[in-house]
Amino acid sequence: MLNFSFKNSTQIHFGEGQISQLRDAIPAKARVLVTYGGGSIKQNGVYDQVAEALSGHAWFEFSGIEPNPNYDTLIGALNLIREHKIDFLLAVGGGSVIDGSKFIAAAARFEGDAWDIIAKRAPVTAALPLGCVLTLPATGSESNSGAVITRDGNKLPFMSPLVQPAFAVLDPAVTLSLSDRQISNGVVDAFVHTMEQYLTYPVNAKVQDRFAEGLLLTLIEEGPKALAAESKDDLEVRSNIMWSATLALNGLIGAGVPQDWATHMIGHELTGAYGIDHARTLSIVLPAVMKVKKEAKREKLLQYAERVWQLTDGDADSRIERAIELTEQFFSNMQVPTRLSQVELGDEAIDLLIGKLTEHGMTALGEQNDISADVSRRILQAAL
Amino acid sequence: MLNFSFKNSTQIHFGEGQISQLRDAIPAKARVLVTYGGGSIKQNGVYDQVAEALSGHAWFEFSGIEPNPNYDTLIGALNLIREHKIDFLLAVGGGSVIDGSKFIAAAARFEGDAWDIIAKRAPVTAALPLGCVLTLPATGSESNSGAVITRDGNKLPFMSPLVQPAFAVLDPAVTLSLSDRQISNGVVDAFVHTMEQYLTYPVNAKVQDRFAEGLLLTLIEEGPKALAAESKDDLEVRSNIMWSATLALNGLIGAGVPQDWATHMIGHELTGAYGIDHARTLSIVLPAVMKVKKEAKREKLLQYAERVWQLTDGDADSRIERAIELTEQFFSNMQVPTRLSQVELGDEAIDLLIGKLTEHGMTALGEQNDISADVSRRILQAAL
Repeated sequence: MLNFSFKNSTQIHFGEGQISQLRDAIPAKARVLVTYGGGSIKQNGVYDQVAEALSGHAWFEFSGIEPNPNYDTLIGALNLIREHKIDFLLAVGGGSVIDGSKFIAAAARFEGDAWDIIAKRAPVTAALPLGCVLTLPATGSESNSGAVITRDGNKLPFMSPLVQPAFAVLDPAVTLSLSDRQISNGVVDAFVHTMEQYLTYPVNAKVQDRFAEGLLLTLIEEGPKALAAESKDDLEVRSNIMWSATLALNGLIGAGVPQDWATHMIGHELTGAYGIDHARTLSIVLPAVMKVKKEAKREKLLQYAERVWQLTDGDADSRIERAIELTEQFFSNMQVPTRLSQVELGDEAIDLLIGKLTEHGMTALGEQNDISADVSRRILQAAL
Repeated sequence: MLNFSFKNSTQIHFGEGQISQLRDAIPAKARVLVTYGGGSIKQNGVYDQVAEALSGHAWFEFSGIEPNPNYDTLIGALNLIREHKIDFLLAVGGGSVIDGSKFIAAAARFEGDAWDIIAKRAPVTAALPLGCVLTLPATGSESNSGAVITRDGNKLPFMSPLVQPAFAVLDPAVTLSLSDRQISNGVVDAFVHTMEQYLTYPVNAKVQDRFAEGLLLTLIEEGPKALAAESKDDLEVRSNIMWSATLALNGLIGAGVPQDWATHMIGHELTGAYGIDHARTLSIVLPAVMKVKKEAKREKLLQYAERVWQLTDGDADSRIERAIELTEQFFSNMQVPTRLSQVELGDEAIDLLIGKLTEHGMTALGEQNDISADVSRRILQAAL
C-alpha cells in the first residue's frame, strides 16, 4: 500500500425524506443561494421539498446550470451573490450543478479573474460554504473536492478542500424520476470512477481492492435493474446505486493506491469537442484503454476477471479478453456506446482529439504517466 | 438500506514515517499534552519520533494510562492540564490510551463531576481538541467518537462528536514491535467489530455488506501472517491489518444497517469482573451468540458462510454450523480462547455476569433488542 493522507468531512444524510434535514444543516441566519439546472426539480417535487425545508431561511435562486457547466453561465451567479449578500450555497442537482456551484463558491471569494482558478491553477484561499441535495447519482461530486468546468469547448478540472460540500442529502427516492439515459450515464460514470482507481498495478492494498470490487459488483447487479421495467421503481435498487456512486469517488478507495484517470482525460476531450455525454465517452474509451494497456495492467486485469466476473477457467490471456468483453457487454446492457462509430465518429476525429490532449498538456496520462499522445492515439484507434 | 447520517472528519495520515506529519497537524502555538500508556513507546522509538516532530511545540506528558483505562488514573491528568494551560491532547498508543484521552478531553472542559459524563450520560458541550498516533490496530478509536472507561470494575461507554480525533497517524511500522498477544487481540477485536455491524438481518445494503466482507476476508488472510515467524516482519501485512481495523469501526460499514453489539456488552462484563483482555472476551462470546441467535441471524449467517468462507455445498444448516466452526478455528489460529473454560471460568461465573448485565441495564441487547438477561445466560452457557 502507498502512503496516503485521507479525510472526508462531508456530512451525508441518506434516505427517503432526508431533504427535511436542510432545515438544521444550514445555519439559521445564512443567506442562501439555491443553485440548480434546467428546472426538472420543479417537476419532480424536489424544489418544493427544498423550499419547505428552507421556509425559515432567507433564500434566493440561480437556475440554468447546464450539463458540463459553463464558465460564462456560472459567472452570472456572482452578481446575485453580491446583490443579496449570499453567504451559503445550496446546490440542488447532479454532478454538473454541484461542480458548477463549487466554482461559484470559489469565484465569489476570489480576488482577480476567477478563470485563473482553472486556467492558471491559482490557489483557492477562501470559498462560500456549500451544501448539496443530490438528484443524480453519478459523479461523486457531492462529497469530494473536485469539479470540472467547461469554457470554449475546453473541459478542465480544479480541486480545493474549501469547495468540498459541508453536507450532502442523498434521497434515492428523488432519482426515481430520472430518465433511463440519466440513470445509465450515472451508473457507468460511477463504474468507471471505480475502475480508474482499481485497474492499475497491484500494491497489495487488500481493503481498497475489495471495496472497489464491492462497488463494481453492486453496480453490475443493480444498474440493469434500474432500467428494467419490472424493477425500475425499486427504491432499494436506487439506494444501492446512489451509495455506490458516492463511495466510488469520495477519496476512500483511491487512498493508498495508484490511480489511472486516462479514460477520463481522453473522454473529456470527446465531450469538449463533440458534446458527447460524459459517461458515454467513458464507456467508449475504457475498453480501449484496457486493451492497449493490457500488459501493464495484467495482474489487476486477472484479479478483476476473477473477483468481479468469476472467471477462473482457461488461460490468463483468455480470461483477460473475456473480462474486457464482459465489461463492454455490461456497458451495452446499460445502453451506452462502446465504440466511436456508435457516436458517428471515425478516424477524422482522432487527429483533432490528439491535438486537444496535447494542447491541454495531457500527454503523460495513466498510473505510470506513460500514455503519451501516441498511446492515446492507439487507444482511440482501438475504440473506432 | 436504513436511513442514516454519516460523517467521519478525522484526517488520516497513513504509512511509514508519517509521525513526522505531527509537526503540521498540530497548531504551532498549541500547548500539547502527550498522553500514553506504560512506556513501551520509549522502547520502540515512537516516543523519540513524536518528540522530534514536536520539537517546535510547547509540550508536556502524562503517562500511565492502563488497558481498560481507569477513571481514577485519567482524572489525574486534569491538574497537569490546568497547571500548564494545555489546549491540545496528543494520544500516543492503542485504543485504551485514545479512549482514556477522549475522556480527559471532555473532562477538562466539563463543569461539575466529570463522572456524570459516563454515569449520567451528561451531555459533552466542549472538549479539548485531540489528535492521536496509533500504535496498536484494534479498536478503531483513532477515528471515531466513542470511548469505554472503567471505574470500580464497571466498564462503560460514552460518545461525543467533540472527542473524535482531529487527526490520526497510522504508521504500520510501529506495530512491528507489538507482542503476539497484542496483535492477536487487535485482529480479533477488529474482526468482531465488523461482525457486530454485519451479522444481523439483511436490509439489502449491498455496499455495506461487501465492505464488511472485504474487511473480514482481509483480517482472516493477514491476521495469522502477523503471528507466523516467516511473515511477522512483513510491513504490508501490518498495513492491511491496520487499515482494516480503522475501517472496521469508523462508522462507514455500520451506516444504514442494523447493529448487534451484544457480544461487546457481554464481553465488557467479563473484562470488568475478571480482567480478561477485551478481545479474548469477544472470541469467547461471539461464537456463542452465533449459536444461540442462529435462527434470527439465519440469512446473514448463510451469506457469511458463502462469501467469507466459500461454503456453498451441503444443506443450509450444515453450512451455518461449518461457518461457526471456521470462525472458532480462526480465533484459535489467532491464539485467543473460544470458551469460558479456557479462561478458567465455569457455571459459577454466569450468575455474577448476568447480575452485572442487569445492573448496567444491558437486558435488551442485540439488533432486535431481544437478548434479555435470560438469553444472555443461554449465550454464556453455550460458551462454557
